[in-house]
Amino acid sequence: MNYTSYFRPGIDAMEGYTPGEQPKTMDIIKLNTNESPFPPAPGVKQALLDFETVRLRRYPDPVSSVLREEIAAMNGYGPENIITGNGSDDLLTILTRCFTDEHRAMACFDPSYSLYPTLANLQGAPCIRIPLTDDFDIPDDVLEQAAGANLFFIARPNAPTGNLFAKAKMERICAGFKGIVVIDEAYADFSRDNCMELVKKYANVVITRTFSKSRSLAGLRFAFAVAHPKIIEGMMKMKDSYNVSMLTQVLALASLRDPGYFEKCVNEIKANREVLAEGLRKLSFEILPSETNFLFVRPPKNAKKYFEDLKLKNIVVRYFPMARTCNYVRITVGSAAENAALLKATEEILSC
Amino acid sequence: MNYTSYFRPGIDAMEGYTPGEQPKTMDIIKLNTNESPFPPAPGVKQALLDFETVRLRRYPDPVSSVLREEIAAMNGYGPENIITGNGSDDLLTILTRCFTDEHRAMACFDPSYSLYPTLANLQGAPCIRIPLTDDFDIPDDVLEQAAGANLFFIARPNAPTGNLFAKAKMERICAGFKGIVVIDEAYADFSRDNCMELVKKYANVVITRTFSKSRSLAGLRFAFAVAHPKIIEGMMKMKDSYNVSMLTQVLALASLRDPGYFEKCVNEIKANREVLAEGLRKLSFEILPSETNFLFVRPPKNAKKYFEDLKLKNIVVRYFPMARTCNYVRITVGSAAENAALLKATEEILSC
Repeated sequence: MNYTSYFRPGIDAMEGYTPGEQPKTMDIIKLNTNESPFPPAPGVKQALLDFETVRLRRYPDPVSSVLREEIAAMNGYGPENIITGNGSDDLLTILTRCFTDEHRAMACFDPSYSLYPTLANLQGAPCIRIPLTDDFDIPDDVLEQAAGANLFFIARPNAPTGNLFAKAKMERICAGFKGIVVIDEAYADFSRDNCMELVKKYANVVITRTFSKSRSLAGLRFAFAVAHPKIIEGMMKMKDSYNVSMLTQVLALASLRDPGYFEKCVNEIKANREVLAEGLRKLSFEILPSETNFLFVRPPKNAKKYFEDLKLKNIVVRYFPMARTCNYVRITVGSAAENAALLKATEEILSC
Repeated sequence: MNYTSYFRPGIDAMEGYTPGEQPKTMDIIKLNTNESPFPPAPGVKQALLDFETVRLRRYPDPVSSVLREEIAAMNGYGPENIITGNGSDDLLTILTRCFTDEHRAMACFDPSYSLYPTLANLQGAPCIRIPLTDDFDIPDDVLEQAAGANLFFIARPNAPTGNLFAKAKMERICAGFKGIVVIDEAYADFSRDNCMELVKKYANVVITRTFSKSRSLAGLRFAFAVAHPKIIEGMMKMKDSYNVSMLTQVLALASLRDPGYFEKCVNEIKANREVLAEGLRKLSFEILPSETNFLFVRPPKNAKKYFEDLKLKNIVVRYFPMARTCNYVRITVGSAAENAALLKATEEILSC
């Protein structure tokens, strides 16, 4: 049997995106993919128990009507401003397909979420990577550098660096960029502000939000985007008809309807973030300001070695070997006990 | 606020795929989207009750390892031959993105699953639509007509016509077509044979299967594809990292592990199909041979009018207004009671 490749050019040669490890053993402290240390809202468990399995024989609502109504109302928009996705990845893929191709480039920052350039590659679209300044901020000539791109992906707060670009800088980009600006707010629930209201002012802005981090539902796959109705309309054509499963819709709704639990979890993670940062600072780490549920830190010893030493102690964090990030590790803010274990392990590693 | 469209050419103008209606009221007999009349396997309900909600805070296994092992073993392949998807739509989108673009056409039959040309449109790829013969069979010059395409989508059994193309004809296409042949076996569980073994003989063949029809899990979104490991490898790069949710993986596995219930349901649907066909034949309908869980039938009166009259009686079937299909309606094989209600309503409509 002879194999001939019929793949579009570039697919065979490219590497594909590598997601953070999902170790199968449970005796590991997993601080590598920014999951929440808390269980989902109690209502999610109840919704699961109440769910009548027979409903699964039917297709789900293709446009998540109830969720879109409630998300819209919570954010001051109408359902025509909302699209739901099978996680943010689904929405980012849809956006890439709607707005980029061989002749329409994507722009993104470096360092930022490493999925963006992979999405451009998969689409066969050029990718303009705009270096952040030395302190990981937006450069003054961002609009000149992004000129010619049709889609600009900006993670705010940025990942893996954790900092929050000034809102005035974001607004300058939205006003000046000739194309779609996607503000990926995966971590916005942990930050002091967000850009949701920019959709009201600029018809080229898309905000994305996920339930994977602040709502403890990474396993469920649910995210939504907010934008001008015309943008939502085109994205709806591009998405798979039934992209959000019935159980995902039911459980995402249950989570949404428990704002108290959500706020409690977010506040606790923000408090734990400060404790963890303080502990690492005492151990001579350089800590970048974080507005997320993770810390981007520079250890007082070789970062890769520190990452590997932690792994030997069954603690998994994330290391990005690229030039701009290779002196840092990214540590998810875990439970108080997990954070304490990380600090203890770090102290042991540094004292060797 | 001024809106300027930044969509890739064609998106604004195109219509998008229209899925079958999902009415929200429950007092309707819904025979329009080929769902199963039976609940999912009892093990699915149990798996839902046993599921520990706290697991949802973690990301799912990105490559559905356990499912792929078991699916591979059941079909005589290895896990390297299997990829899983968020429903067949997800896999068909991945295939379209891997193998077609502006310069690489898709081929498909007409009439066939109307999603295929929509997928080509969304990708900006040309679509070669090859007319089936008058009795909805593959034309002799199929290879000549498909020449130049890089991807050929074939539903077998075909939808919406329900017939099964001869396996010898399929094999001739697999051997002669210079590109990827996708055999979409969404309905193969209801038919007398399937093409699964062709993957062993031809490195350019992809088989797709879904849990939406024969496994009563349309709401869950689960499907898989079987192909040469090199094809799977490229598709894995293209898919979203966490395309199959954790609950979907858990429940799909539970369904897979109950082969007895599955066979019982399939056999009952096949038996009901014959009863329904016989009933309609007695009412002077022309019935196309069906190897699926639906019937494609030509009513003795105007098909569109019949479709509308049924709707007035709260029975929803599917009508495709295109030239080749406008004299037929497609009726899902429902429960014995639903089928009897359809026959009764039809008798009333015809006697008016």
